[in-house]
Amino acid sequence: MSDYKYPYKDILFSLHHVARIERLTPHLDESLDQELVEAILSEAGKLSEQVMAPLNWRGDQEGSRVENGEVFEPKGYKEMYQAYCEGGWGALSSDVKYGGQGLPSTIATAVNEGIQSANLAFSLCPLLAHGAIEAIQSHASDEIKNTYIPKMVTGQWAGTMNLTEPSAGSDLAAISCKAFPNSADLAAETYLIKGQKIYITWGDHQMSENIIHLVLARLPDAPAGVKGISLFIVPKFLLDEEGNPAERNDISVVSVEHKLGIHASPTCVMSYGDNTGAIGYLVGEPNDGLKAMFTMMNNARQGVGLQGLAISERAYQQALQYAKERKQGMKADRSGRAAIIEHPDVLRMLMTMRSQIDAMRSLVYVAAVENDLSHISKGEEQQAAIARTALLTPIVKGWITELAQEVTSLAIQVHGGMGFIEETGVAQHARDARILPIYEGTNGIQAIDLIGRKLLGDNGHAMTALFSEMEGELDRYIGSEKHDNAIKVKNSIEVAKQATEKCLSAMKDNPILGTGLAYSYMMMMGYVIGGWLLVRAQQVSTTDESLGDQQVNSWQQSADFYCDHILTRAGYYAKTIEHGQKSVQVLNEDSFIR
Amino acid sequence: MSDYKYPYKDILFSLHHVARIERLTPHLDESLDQELVEAILSEAGKLSEQVMAPLNWRGDQEGSRVENGEVFEPKGYKEMYQAYCEGGWGALSSDVKYGGQGLPSTIATAVNEGIQSANLAFSLCPLLAHGAIEAIQSHASDEIKNTYIPKMVTGQWAGTMNLTEPSAGSDLAAISCKAFPNSADLAAETYLIKGQKIYITWGDHQMSENIIHLVLARLPDAPAGVKGISLFIVPKFLLDEEGNPAERNDISVVSVEHKLGIHASPTCVMSYGDNTGAIGYLVGEPNDGLKAMFTMMNNARQGVGLQGLAISERAYQQALQYAKERKQGMKADRSGRAAIIEHPDVLRMLMTMRSQIDAMRSLVYVAAVENDLSHISKGEEQQAAIARTALLTPIVKGWITELAQEVTSLAIQVHGGMGFIEETGVAQHARDARILPIYEGTNGIQAIDLIGRKLLGDNGHAMTALFSEMEGELDRYIGSEKHDNAIKVKNSIEVAKQATEKCLSAMKDNPILGTGLAYSYMMMMGYVIGGWLLVRAQQVSTTDESLGDQQVNSWQQSADFYCDHILTRAGYYAKTIEHGQKSVQVLNEDSFIR
Repeated sequence: MSDYKYPYKDILFSLHHVARIERLTPHLDESLDQELVEAILSEAGKLSEQVMAPLNWRGDQEGSRVENGEVFEPKGYKEMYQAYCEGGWGALSSDVKYGGQGLPSTIATAVNEGIQSANLAFSLCPLLAHGAIEAIQSHASDEIKNTYIPKMVTGQWAGTMNLTEPSAGSDLAAISCKAFPNSADLAAETYLIKGQKIYITWGDHQMSENIIHLVLARLPDAPAGVKGISLFIVPKFLLDEEGNPAERNDISVVSVEHKLGIHASPTCVMSYGDNTGAIGYLVGEPNDGLKAMFTMMNNARQGVGLQGLAISERAYQQALQYAKERKQGMKADRSGRAAIIEHPDVLRMLMTMRSQIDAMRSLVYVAAVENDLSHISKGEEQQAAIARTALLTPIVKGWITELAQEVTSLAIQVHGGMGFIEETGVAQHARDARILPIYEGTNGIQAIDLIGRKLLGDNGHAMTALFSEMEGELDRYIGSEKHDNAIKVKNSIEVAKQATEKCLSAMKDNPILGTGLAYSYMMMMGYVIGGWLLVRAQQVSTTDESLGDQQVNSWQQSADFYCDHILTRAGYYAKTIEHGQKSVQVLNEDSFIR
Repeated sequence: MSDYKYPYKDILFSLHHVARIERLTPHLDESLDQELVEAILSEAGKLSEQVMAPLNWRGDQEGSRVENGEVFEPKGYKEMYQAYCEGGWGALSSDVKYGGQGLPSTIATAVNEGIQSANLAFSLCPLLAHGAIEAIQSHASDEIKNTYIPKMVTGQWAGTMNLTEPSAGSDLAAISCKAFPNSADLAAETYLIKGQKIYITWGDHQMSENIIHLVLARLPDAPAGVKGISLFIVPKFLLDEEGNPAERNDISVVSVEHKLGIHASPTCVMSYGDNTGAIGYLVGEPNDGLKAMFTMMNNARQGVGLQGLAISERAYQQALQYAKERKQGMKADRSGRAAIIEHPDVLRMLMTMRSQIDAMRSLVYVAAVENDLSHISKGEEQQAAIARTALLTPIVKGWITELAQEVTSLAIQVHGGMGFIEETGVAQHARDARILPIYEGTNGIQAIDLIGRKLLGDNGHAMTALFSEMEGELDRYIGSEKHDNAIKVKNSIEVAKQATEKCLSAMKDNPILGTGLAYSYMMMMGYVIGGWLLVRAQQVSTTDESLGDQQVNSWQQSADFYCDHILTRAGYYAKTIEHGQKSVQVLNEDSFIR
């Protein structure tokens, strides 16, 4: 197993030079203290490297298990969770009103990158709690907020999201879990929840004093479909008069799934109300539950994109280390045995990883800053940030998690036969990464969201604004000393603009059939945007005096490689969009009968 | 778990119409009996579907285990092996002199497709034995051949290949296992083998009466490097005077690897000669061991390509079945819930699988027929077949096994969350498939073999011949009613020819640095050749009276989709070759320091 090293310098570089986090400053109560940010990231790095990374493989091998309706996480995870809570890591971007530190969520993103690289399975527990906090904060009554949020911010209580049912996956309209007014409750403030939920991440464990489940369910006489879904808080332990966990609610864990990856993270089948009914509290208005879910959609989906970056970085580090150590074959000058990193095909694999990780990281932090701006800026700037965040989010989620499949698989390949041996640890990263294109909206759903809601839905305005910004910036680089890559990316934008027209016209003809091009469109845009940001990084690296020649050279080589070996894929997807509409549209079930 | 259905009709179609197996007829003692071939494939299909497929997932879950230096395979595998032996399946393409049926190995390939789809981990045991038979037959003395081959052909005795050592993976020059003349053997016919071998597939098990290990080792005073490696037969049980297994040889299994996939197949660390030395018999001349290995290289590498096809077919079938059954979202006309196969993005995924499988299968059988011709034809035809086989083999191995990663991953994606649950069984295919780009020469090695030995090594003659043949055939289609795809493939050939020139000049400048383009070249050629053969299939399907309109339509749609959505990747790789040489050549270890 290799050690994980938090890429502190690369993250700071992305935050400042690529994502330009200083854009947040005018909208903050007090300006971002640079030294504080550096101290936070440095400490987060240590936590990730020293506490979380060492438990990653052991947690995978041991897994979580269910016994008598309760889940037990792997050894050492409870202590790791305590370290996380004691460090106040869950409170970084939470509201100061509830005990949070009120920092921009971009800072939490930079912290989470380390935690997710170090231990993806573990990281999901605080991540889900954070999502639950957001939903409660945006929609619940003050009483509920004051009761639950402070203890969730500290991590004393964890949180989960309960959406999926066996017949309701991507299709939430099919949710059938029921909620009834609790006739025993004279104040009529509680409901009884009955039904089964599946794929509940960290649905149960022993790490926190309580677990606050957010559950989507239908009230009696609710309208059919998505307009009849309500959101409820259903705590594992009901609170006593002092607000402390007391009586066990009527919730049990039916089973923990046996999964391809993220073994330490218990994916639970949860049963609510097998006996008397699980007591729940309505969050927001009746039948308005989906709105609360969509509140945290951008954060949650960007969070999965971040996971794609994080697991790629971890896999890359391990491959790089192995490539330096493993000797096979002769040096080019026959002077002795070569480390495999000396072979051009291995260098190709490593730079395919490195350059795409540089592009992913650039996009992750750019999108995170836009997301912060969409909340804290005002007026036109806010409107622009809202539109940009909406546009980038499916690309962050979809494109990055697709790339994570390639990068983690390449990390195995660099290891040769050793990569296939579980003890090497690199196969775990590929297994863990495989969930990313699936959860929080499959990548097919992301692509359709991008081409439908985000592109067609606003007649291409947000995308046009992005194209203009990219072109304007690249034009400024053209004419400078090293502008080859800027020209290449600008050419790819031209191609992407034409493909965008093609998509818009296909969707206007027939929105459903047009979705056959959605995946290609999402991937094309990811590669183009990645190229734009990597050229920005390359350009700005030459002006950053804190970087040595070698680092500047590394950014240059990464951008060069990306533009010659990776960006070219945008052209492939554009061609697919240009010519491939009919050959998808004619397909139906009969196409596969032979 | 889905059932597996042997794709009997598609395989017959590929054999006859794409690979034109009838080309073998003039070189066979008696012409291929069409009814016999159909009967063989039909029976092989039943064996695969009914006996082998049902044990695939259970074997994965149980795995093989080692106890006291012996390996125990999963439950039911011994009976499966017996069924395989009793059916005479191992003897199909073996020499009649040793009890084989003397059929072309292309027929065995078609049988093995079913077995590998049904149970990849199991299939490796007879496959390795077959490789061992080939090596023995080509290089050993008549006495050794007569002693060992007949019982290996029946499957009574299994066989293994022992190449790899901890420091000698891709780099066989580093082999350090030793062989000493056995001073206790007055006839000086035996050697004592001492050393450790790793990654020995089916290195031990209880399914056969004996296991015949082929081991690469160095004699005393052997030259350094690959010119000092000799090949030995080292049976698990030494034979008594009647030639029956008797005394246990000095061989033990140190451990069985804990792997990402093919769990049922024990990957052993083998120790030879821990005590007195393992008794072995020299095969061929001293220091000539690598030649025996290369004898079976084409077969073995094409065999791994076949595994890529087979596991892709299995995963595709499961995804298709799920897509028909799983309901999510509404039908386009809102008349009710839709099966997910009705959604265009799911159709896209399924046809991405289907069309690439059609291309893979076409290539597999074309290469298999060429391989047969390279052995049994004469004169110019044989020379051409030898060159074509040498050229196609790295593409069969490398390109197909890369595609298998995509297809098996898409099969997971079609399943959504269910795909990540191990009980669904589809994740196993992706896990099993992940070894294919690694073993029998990593795909990096394949790519370098293609661009170095096969392209530069003969100054591009074999590749030029292939380009001419492809162009000539496509020209014949152009002008026919449905020639769009022929034109598209012809255009891609034009691009590939230019890229070939680029590669040749890069390699001539500097053979080592030129290998940075090798992977792109291999992938580009795979997509072009796949397109050529799929257009052939499409064209010929319209003239096959045994096919109904729906089947003809399905070939057309598959070729259309391939040319619009897949073939375009050839252009991406060509661009990478055109522009990407420098950005690989400048890389070295320092490129990754940041």
